Amino acid sequence: MAAGLPEPEPLRALIDALRGLPGVGVRTARRMAYHLLQHDPQGALRLGDALRDAVGGLRHCERCNSFSQTPVCATCENPERDASVLCVVETPADQNMIEASHGYQGLYYVLMGRLAPLEGVGPDQVRFAPLRERVRDGRVREVILATNFTAEGETTAYYLAEMLRECGVKVTRLARGVPSGSELEYVDAGTIAWALMERRPN
Amino acid sequence: MAAGLPEPEPLRALIDALRGLPGVGVRTARRMAYHLLQHDPQGALRLGDALRDAVGGLRHCERCNSFSQTPVCATCENPERDASVLCVVETPADQNMIEASHGYQGLYYVLMGRLAPLEGVGPDQVRFAPLRERVRDGRVREVILATNFTAEGETTAYYLAEMLRECGVKVTRLARGVPSGSELEYVDAGTIAWALMERRPN
Ligand SMILES: [Zn+2]
Ligand SMILES: [Zn+2]
Repeated sequence: MAAGLPEPEPLRALIDALRGLPGVGVRTARRMAYHLLQHDPQGALRLGDALRDAVGGLRHCERCNSFSQTPVCATCENPERDASVLCVVETPADQNMIEASHGYQGLYYVLMGRLAPLEGVGPDQVRFAPLRERVRDGRVREVILATNFTAEGETTAYYLAEMLRECGVKVTRLARGVPSGSELEYVDAGTIAWALMERRPN
Repeated sequence: MAAGLPEPEPLRALIDALRGLPGVGVRTARRMAYHLLQHDPQGALRLGDALRDAVGGLRHCERCNSFSQTPVCATCENPERDASVLCVVETPADQNMIEASHGYQGLYYVLMGRLAPLEGVGPDQVRFAPLRERVRDGRVREVILATNFTAEGETTAYYLAEMLRECGVKVTRLARGVPSGSELEYVDAGTIAWALMERRPN
């Protein structure tokens, strides 16, 4: 217990553990702890169980590297998906977004990260070797690079394009342009510049 | 699993449980879950244990209503504190702030909430009766109302002042004024108005 501060040990430990969540500082952690203890102890116990179940029950899919309860995930096992196209994304959240577009029937590879040289995250940390193995399965014809259009995502896409070129597959990138449904007035200049460069006959 | 979205059940359950934290929406919950599973499974297990320990190991102190491992907390048991003054705060965080000021030697009562008529939180929800009992212990001479200087905190202070007047104790309120160390240019007009009204000889 800090000098003079009346914080019992289990509360201090809980606040400390909550600070391990991304974007959660000590004030937010304290507010979360008070909320759970005062208003939602059942939710706290449910979260405790969910954490244990998820850490214990999830692994990485051997084929796509996303989280899975089984050695190979349901998406990779699905015979109706087109095994000749592989979409490479940074996170399962990105994979969800592409699924939600209902515009893709191929398979995925989830990097679970991206190159970020400024943060010291290089090719050794992201582990691209399993992707190279995956692409060499003899069925993949095209790899769609769907990393983010951020500095890190672009760096990663550039690196992957170089790496995958040697595998003898077609490598493409998601199109850049003005977001569907958006007004030009509210689109940033860089996006407009890309949309102009990559304009197409209509 | 939602249609087409490849989210295994333990991951979905974890994201769902994280959404129970105050201020955490589905995107933040998903980011937290990925972070824990990918980068900090030990932290996830530690958080799970801390939640269980805190829910199971903490109760409300019988005297001050704050969280405690024992029936009466260390602060209330401390014989060096002045039992004739009772400071009423909304949360343990507020209690911590007052302790950290090193300007208070009395005891506390932690409401664990405040009146918020607009949110449907009335006197029945906050349970003021134990405070009234606490104040009638024959030792308390003064109650300092240290609820927040928000609409809800002021409403609560007003209500408590009315209630405690009947208990025959002196009821005071923290002073309002310009924050120590602040430049007037950056202080809001309402605070300046209060500081003028409550000006003192220097
Ligand atoms: Zn898979
Ligand atoms: Zn106490």
